[in-house]
Amino acid sequence: MRDVAIIGVGMIPWGELWEDSLRTIWTRAAVAALEDAGVDTVDLITVGCMSSGLFVGQEHLASMVADQLGMPGVPASRVESACASGSLALRHAFAEVAAGLVDIALVTGVEKMTDVDGGAATYTLGTAADQEYESFHGITFPGLYAMMARVHMAHYGTTSRQMAAVSMKNHANGLLNPNAQYHLKVSIDDVLSSTPVAEPLHLLDCSPITDGAAALVIAPIDRARDLAGRRPVVRIAGSGMATDTIALADREDLSRLRAVELSAERAYAMAGKKPSDIHVAEVHDCFTIAEIMTTEALGFFGPGEGGPAAEKGWTALDGRIPVNPSGGLKSKGHPVGATGVAQVCEIVNQLRGEAGQRQVKDARVGLTQNMGGSGGSSIVHILEVV
Amino acid sequence: MRDVAIIGVGMIPWGELWEDSLRTIWTRAAVAALEDAGVDTVDLITVGCMSSGLFVGQEHLASMVADQLGMPGVPASRVESACASGSLALRHAFAEVAAGLVDIALVTGVEKMTDVDGGAATYTLGTAADQEYESFHGITFPGLYAMMARVHMAHYGTTSRQMAAVSMKNHANGLLNPNAQYHLKVSIDDVLSSTPVAEPLHLLDCSPITDGAAALVIAPIDRARDLAGRRPVVRIAGSGMATDTIALADREDLSRLRAVELSAERAYAMAGKKPSDIHVAEVHDCFTIAEIMTTEALGFFGPGEGGPAAEKGWTALDGRIPVNPSGGLKSKGHPVGATGVAQVCEIVNQLRGEAGQRQVKDARVGLTQNMGGSGGSSIVHILEVV
Repeated sequence: MRDVAIIGVGMIPWGELWEDSLRTIWTRAAVAALEDAGVDTVDLITVGCMSSGLFVGQEHLASMVADQLGMPGVPASRVESACASGSLALRHAFAEVAAGLVDIALVTGVEKMTDVDGGAATYTLGTAADQEYESFHGITFPGLYAMMARVHMAHYGTTSRQMAAVSMKNHANGLLNPNAQYHLKVSIDDVLSSTPVAEPLHLLDCSPITDGAAALVIAPIDRARDLAGRRPVVRIAGSGMATDTIALADREDLSRLRAVELSAERAYAMAGKKPSDIHVAEVHDCFTIAEIMTTEALGFFGPGEGGPAAEKGWTALDGRIPVNPSGGLKSKGHPVGATGVAQVCEIVNQLRGEAGQRQVKDARVGLTQNMGGSGGSSIVHILEVV
Repeated sequence: MRDVAIIGVGMIPWGELWEDSLRTIWTRAAVAALEDAGVDTVDLITVGCMSSGLFVGQEHLASMVADQLGMPGVPASRVESACASGSLALRHAFAEVAAGLVDIALVTGVEKMTDVDGGAATYTLGTAADQEYESFHGITFPGLYAMMARVHMAHYGTTSRQMAAVSMKNHANGLLNPNAQYHLKVSIDDVLSSTPVAEPLHLLDCSPITDGAAALVIAPIDRARDLAGRRPVVRIAGSGMATDTIALADREDLSRLRAVELSAERAYAMAGKKPSDIHVAEVHDCFTIAEIMTTEALGFFGPGEGGPAAEKGWTALDGRIPVNPSGGLKSKGHPVGATGVAQVCEIVNQLRGEAGQRQVKDARVGLTQNMGGSGGSSIVHILEVV
């Protein structure tokens, strides 16, 4: 298996991009990554996208994006694992490069969510839950995560104020990220006084509906060294995937995210790292409770310690383990298929020392964690400067 | 890169399976493949599915299928390249095993198409074409392939009778396949007198709407030898992917399928084979003209010779190069995400000498060709007994 590195990142401003189509935002991010990498041809394109069929009536993105980039002929594929689709695009390209099947791969994620109304968007996101046993009966994602929050509160005494601290911190980070959907200072009281969506979750506990795209270029490590110039080379040290039951009703313990635990175990083992080796992380804060639960599942904190840690500022930019310096899904936005790729863009920027005002000091090892549905799938990547 | 072999196949009867859901048909095929392989755990599951979001309101199949198989925890992914999704599921699992990231992988394809009415199915299939430049304006796939047929007729003198010969041959083969959707003797006159759908294509030139699933198990070749017992070991000798423009209007020559040509070139090069080395092939006959064009693009016949070859019986079970012994998409059915996987099941059965009444004599090297949309993507695999 060959060593693989990330040689380019491409991000664009995210938001409600009503003037743009899926193909235009995708292309903008892809071109940005190719320019950052300094390459103009690739051997493979992967696209992470959850539901372009329901959102914009377009499947077969593999063909569309290769064509759109002026590269018809290039092998391309689209992958989907609900909100973890972006990380799956990286995983599959990583396997292709590691195996030696291709050299340079363009890894992308995209979702155009605002071309449909809110009801249709909610229905579409609900297809990430179990349609027959959950969604069809009317529950939506805020309700699913609210149930997990309730159990976490009951087991560990986690509070609404601790969840609100996650929102406050991620919005503070997002203020420093020019590509974030929201540039908004949010206090704990703002969160607690915002509209209840599914108790105990308020509006400001929830990530938004977003149009967005993100892209990476990866290559075998020798090629990466040639192209890097003076910039640090960022190696993919670990990649771990796992699933869990898709329906919450089938889980033994709603206060834990087993897929996150398993995917992290596999990534740590492959990288030869442990939680305390990680200097910076981007995790899947689709709801504030999700950040608390994932920081526990990743081993940054013990069970039940995620909430207090957030409230004490341990996950802030200058904390013990900075989490979601980009602003996370909460503030940067959550175009579901693009999120996992954007997480990796942020960590690469951090490890290269190119994260501007939100730079985490001396970050040399970073982690991304991206999950689908209510934790039915999770993918973790560990990156390091070599 | 490690050598990879196919150690199990699982097919189920295809058709309008109104009593079953996507998850039940998927599970039946998956269990059949695991039993055929003689394994009860896997390290990875891949699912090829074009549009479960639009067809049954369920995305996030990776989580659902791992759960459904009683294996929550196992890494899983869903891939999509329109009607080539099944072959993409094999390609991605092949890369993972070849790289050494996993050992045993369950490769599956599924589509549940009859839970919606015909109009919705036609709309959903249309999302494989360019939504903005083609589908939105009203054209559907019979129309797109009819345009290709018209150009092929104009360039080469290809006739409706030659296309009908493809349908007759594939229905004859399907009569010998207990899993085929149709068991129907069809004559050339039956085809020519069937309802025109999009001239020059008649109803019996078109593949049907089908519910179906198929599955494979793959492993590193050493493991495959251990598990094979007295059965032949079938190695994946070549794997080639390519794209083309998604919209027909952007192509230089509608009488050629460039993505098929390119994907075949890559697969032949990797396998060290040429067209004349192939003993049996399953190709993507979504319409009869598609079989004629793909047999040319694969190099079995020269440009314009595909039609006469079909009429002369060169692609029949006892012909020079038997094509679609399973009955092809035309007779076996075309559950879009499952088709590519089922093609590989058929070739493995042929190479193992387990194809029953439709066994091709002395078949030791086989090929599958699976494409998305109007040839916007194509994937070719070459298998051989080792």
